[in-house]
Amino acid sequence: MLIVMQVDAAERQISEVVSVIMELGFKAHPMPGATRTAIGITGNQGAVEATRFENMPGVAEVIRVTKPYKLITLDLQPEKTIVHVGDATIGGDELAIIAGPCAIESRAQAFAVAETVHKSGARFFRGGAYKPRTSPYDFQGLGEEGLKILAEVRDVYGLKIVTEALDEAGVDLVECYGDMIQIGARNMQNFSLLRRAGRSPLPVLLKRGIAATLDEWLLAAEYIMAEGNYQVVLCERGIRTFAQHTRNTLDLAAIPAVRRISHLPVIVDPSHGTGKNYMVTPLARAAVAVGADGLIIEVHDQPERALCDGPQALTLEQYDQLVDEVRLISEASSAVLVI
Amino acid sequence: MLIVMQVDAAERQISEVVSVIMELGFKAHPMPGATRTAIGITGNQGAVEATRFENMPGVAEVIRVTKPYKLITLDLQPEKTIVHVGDATIGGDELAIIAGPCAIESRAQAFAVAETVHKSGARFFRGGAYKPRTSPYDFQGLGEEGLKILAEVRDVYGLKIVTEALDEAGVDLVECYGDMIQIGARNMQNFSLLRRAGRSPLPVLLKRGIAATLDEWLLAAEYIMAEGNYQVVLCERGIRTFAQHTRNTLDLAAIPAVRRISHLPVIVDPSHGTGKNYMVTPLARAAVAVGADGLIIEVHDQPERALCDGPQALTLEQYDQLVDEVRLISEASSAVLVI
Amino acid sequence: MLIVMQVDAAERQISEVVSVIMELGFKAHPMPGATRTAIGITGNQGAVEATRFENMPGVAEVIRVTKPYKLITLDLQPEKTIVHVGDATIGGDELAIIAGPCAIESRAQAFAVAETVHKSGARFFRGGAYKPRTSPYDFQGLGEEGLKILAEVRDVYGLKIVTEALDEAGVDLVECYGDMIQIGARNMQNFSLLRRAGRSPLPVLLKRGIAATLDEWLLAAEYIMAEGNYQVVLCERGIRTFAQHTRNTLDLAAIPAVRRISHLPVIVDPSHGTGKNYMVTPLARAAVAVGADGLIIEVHDQPERALCDGPQALTLEQYDQLVDEVRLISEASSAVLVI
Amino acid sequence: MLIVMQVDAAERQISEVVSVIMELGFKAHPMPGATRTAIGITGNQGAVEATRFENMPGVAEVIRVTKPYKLITLDLQPEKTIVHVGDATIGGDELAIIAGPCAIESRAQAFAVAETVHKSGARFFRGGAYKPRTSPYDFQGLGEEGLKILAEVRDVYGLKIVTEALDEAGVDLVECYGDMIQIGARNMQNFSLLRRAGRSPLPVLLKRGIAATLDEWLLAAEYIMAEGNYQVVLCERGIRTFAQHTRNTLDLAAIPAVRRISHLPVIVDPSHGTGKNYMVTPLARAAVAVGADGLIIEVHDQPERALCDGPQALTLEQYDQLVDEVRLISEASSAVLVI
Repeated sequence: MLIVMQVDAAERQISEVVSVIMELGFKAHPMPGATRTAIGITGNQGAVEATRFENMPGVAEVIRVTKPYKLITLDLQPEKTIVHVGDATIGGDELAIIAGPCAIESRAQAFAVAETVHKSGARFFRGGAYKPRTSPYDFQGLGEEGLKILAEVRDVYGLKIVTEALDEAGVDLVECYGDMIQIGARNMQNFSLLRRAGRSPLPVLLKRGIAATLDEWLLAAEYIMAEGNYQVVLCERGIRTFAQHTRNTLDLAAIPAVRRISHLPVIVDPSHGTGKNYMVTPLARAAVAVGADGLIIEVHDQPERALCDGPQALTLEQYDQLVDEVRLISEASSAVLVI
Repeated sequence: MLIVMQVDAAERQISEVVSVIMELGFKAHPMPGATRTAIGITGNQGAVEATRFENMPGVAEVIRVTKPYKLITLDLQPEKTIVHVGDATIGGDELAIIAGPCAIESRAQAFAVAETVHKSGARFFRGGAYKPRTSPYDFQGLGEEGLKILAEVRDVYGLKIVTEALDEAGVDLVECYGDMIQIGARNMQNFSLLRRAGRSPLPVLLKRGIAATLDEWLLAAEYIMAEGNYQVVLCERGIRTFAQHTRNTLDLAAIPAVRRISHLPVIVDPSHGTGKNYMVTPLARAAVAVGADGLIIEVHDQPERALCDGPQALTLEQYDQLVDEVRLISEASSAVLVI
Repeated sequence: MLIVMQVDAAERQISEVVSVIMELGFKAHPMPGATRTAIGITGNQGAVEATRFENMPGVAEVIRVTKPYKLITLDLQPEKTIVHVGDATIGGDELAIIAGPCAIESRAQAFAVAETVHKSGARFFRGGAYKPRTSPYDFQGLGEEGLKILAEVRDVYGLKIVTEALDEAGVDLVECYGDMIQIGARNMQNFSLLRRAGRSPLPVLLKRGIAATLDEWLLAAEYIMAEGNYQVVLCERGIRTFAQHTRNTLDLAAIPAVRRISHLPVIVDPSHGTGKNYMVTPLARAAVAVGADGLIIEVHDQPERALCDGPQALTLEQYDQLVDEVRLISEASSAVLVI
Repeated sequence: MLIVMQVDAAERQISEVVSVIMELGFKAHPMPGATRTAIGITGNQGAVEATRFENMPGVAEVIRVTKPYKLITLDLQPEKTIVHVGDATIGGDELAIIAGPCAIESRAQAFAVAETVHKSGARFFRGGAYKPRTSPYDFQGLGEEGLKILAEVRDVYGLKIVTEALDEAGVDLVECYGDMIQIGARNMQNFSLLRRAGRSPLPVLLKRGIAATLDEWLLAAEYIMAEGNYQVVLCERGIRTFAQHTRNTLDLAAIPAVRRISHLPVIVDPSHGTGKNYMVTPLARAAVAVGADGLIIEVHDQPERALCDGPQALTLEQYDQLVDEVRLISEASSAVLVI
């Protein structure tokens, strides 16, 4: 931490800050400059509460230097985590593809989509049984009935089931019927839910909150890992900005940014990230080119009749085309790494 | 809802959209224009799923006209709701002041602050027992112990206790010890929590999410009301923007915006809304001048030793000054209404 | 400036950074910490280019400490600047009110509005002769003809004329016909224009850019002052955020933020800041309560026929009401300062 | 345009709106709904000023349907524009690469970089002679001296020169020494400059403003085209959001969004779009995968000594690697189009 004193800070105020630092058991490094003094702090374990200094007389600013996360860092584990979901993986050499409808609406719909997903070579099937909807009057999902359909899809096609838990009770249910717990953007800082997921034997897919900074997102993963569950996959799904030509602004720079700090795999959701059918495939290509470990894609056999997020769902044909395209990009990207 | 066809949409595509509208039991109003046709829909109850039309051939855009909320609207109840918390009110003639520390840290701290809050004439005491913290390594609150201290404050000073519930179990506890359930910004779309609060006999303080649109915020209130609890107070607490001179950007225009649509009272949190001690009082004055029904303010007897949000907490002296100032503005504002 | 080294930075990398600092003629203050070393720099005049260090091996981050502005700071001039526009002032004891139509449309319109503005006791008249419009097909202003009408208004009513210059040639014209040069939000970083205004004998009203940080805004003022013109008034007019219930999000916290750093007066534009007629008056009250030195308000004798920004223009009656209301708040706020 | 009446709008208010529509010579289409009436307008040429209706009694909302642009649209010209810069093109089959330093600092620096750019097969050289800098105290470019160096680079290497004009006089100079006028993000709504560029024989590279919506950006291009210059290339260079892990948030979804509306070519600037050296190459790959017509890249022979934007400049080696990588992605993307 660095404490910057005001231009006109008195000698006495500087001494007082130094005293408090020493009182806390740390080392103070005063640096008198041409116009003002700055005081470095070392010897502390992790973050010193900036609070303690921010309102002291003569202090202009307190600058945090040490980052508050531990378990997610490359400092702790330099090689990338490979998350295992049964015999499938995310974070390894293969591009992970998670596909399926926004919401499970019926057995027929789920199987029609799963058939295509399975044939495409993807290993993961997504589908919501409990849907977080902005309005209480919108379709909220089939509930446990939906989870049972998902379990059937797994039995028939061998696809791994990724499905969202909205609360702690929801995690119990996903543990019964699914293979991977999805935590949605709205719940990225639902700390009770994060802690519960951290005590689950299942891996967790953690979506970035709609207005989450990189630090907040990584600290949400840290909440899960702090409870003992190290099988966490991050998912960039777009952030809220002033731009109105997309539902959200897909922040692909988040992928190299995460890579630079963390060993956790990171995938991209171009469906929510754009909210527009015609943008999903180009942005999926871009996500693979930027280095994402996988994609999560909304597919529907009849998007125009979807009960949720129809405008962004791909048709089965569009999905097949997407898989072909991203595989070509993925191969070119692998070549890139060995140039 | 209005469906705008593409410039080159075929006659047949227009007919198909009209058929689907009628098939759904609604009335279609095609309006052929100079360059393109638009089709209005009437006869629907509330929102027709835009999805059904958005991907139909020839459709350029689907524009929602009807808003998706009901219970919160002035259409339903033209006069403002007055929320009763015991013998105190929010939304009536008197400016409601809710004050107290970010987190309850000890009995001594709580009582030192409560003494001042009580003397100032405020009727509500705030204080967190369960704190949602970005990092799992930060102070998380005293838990039930904190709630017991709050209950003591109520007994001694007669202040109404406003405290946050982080999950459904947390609501049970607030019902035991408190008077009003606070739902924080991070949980504004935690729908399980909203529904649980909607089944509580206690009134609810619903903070706006950090990136919530007006519609999303009002629909979160609608979730609570849809379960039967009509005692909801909205709280503007700043939104996340590119600006870095404050912790959040306080959006005071939200107050007249809510007023124009909803009968629910709305208060302002200038402490989180700015994150800076020196800004709290001027923004509190502005909040009262813009027409807020109340304020929620963080006060600490020793802000420099606060375990949470110290940089924005007022000292006891600053708080007293704030109350004096906002009362003057409040009186001037009342005069305004009778000019 | 503070240079934070990576956790695993080699001794040799640290020495190299220190060498470069000394080579530049500054003093290096290495602070070895538990996990990483930070190096402070002192002895520099103003900002050292961070660039020089950011890509050196072993460097994790470079943190700027010294702010890059000089002339606008309270460090340089502790008492607030009072800008003189003829015999009227901005930044003194009196609340400055600048009012008039978005665009000058005709002599009749200008005089109808000016009559009311004059009667209200305001000292400044605003009106655009050259309008920056998003579309080339929208009304672009009357040009020099509009300026001549403004000059007539000045002659008849004694109001000071505030009008926008879009380019360097525009400044020449404002110097001919007006009293104060307005630089609009879109031109806040049009540095050629800023420099030209800095060489003008007229005072300058500098609007904040729609996405300008506090630093960028203050540095734009610094551009004007660096050319010798110290008569600068800042104007907060709303920033662009995700929120859609207003045209822009009015950032009233910018007023105390500017105050804390700069001696320049700062006013508020609640018309562009909200874009909605019904919000202008409440936000004007809030602006005065937060401590603004003045207001700039759009008024039109027939807002429903305005050629520009009609939805936010007040009627003459609404404007009169606004002036009454803000005066009451202004008096209460003055009382505040002497409590 | 669609006018939505309030729920309680009187019959008389509806008639009045209809009268005004007819008075303006358009056709009114009233659609009485279950709860409120909406009125469609047809027969108008382009945008009817919403203003005229927004404040009429009983009107709840006015919704624009027709977009305000003409010349940039696919409606007007369905096939993509290929911009010719001498014998090089942007928008055709080949990926356009524009590379060079942020600012021209010396003849030696320019030639060192140009040598590498030329060898890489790129056809365009970028370099600033007049730099728009946030602070008046930062390096502002070599001015005409810099332009002369650029002209030499053209003579020696045959590279086309792309360089920024900050004002109308700057366009005169680029016409003397360069091949393509760059208009920077800060000047995207400097309408005097846009109009001047619209009267130039040179093609124009128009960067997106830091907070520009898609409509504003396209309308800025419309300003240039309305003056007769149809040789416009759009450039996405990142927008300002709350995110702090990059200098700007690169909005790659803007590329398919532009494609869907406009025939103009669109390129991407991953250097400004991220502001971080290590992100430039991955985001360049993503830009090509998403379908951009080209890239503009900052390269420096000694980034650590750059006088401007050093942290984002690639070294010569990194640039060579980038060109190899984007070519592989470009080939895979071409394959995509013929699958």
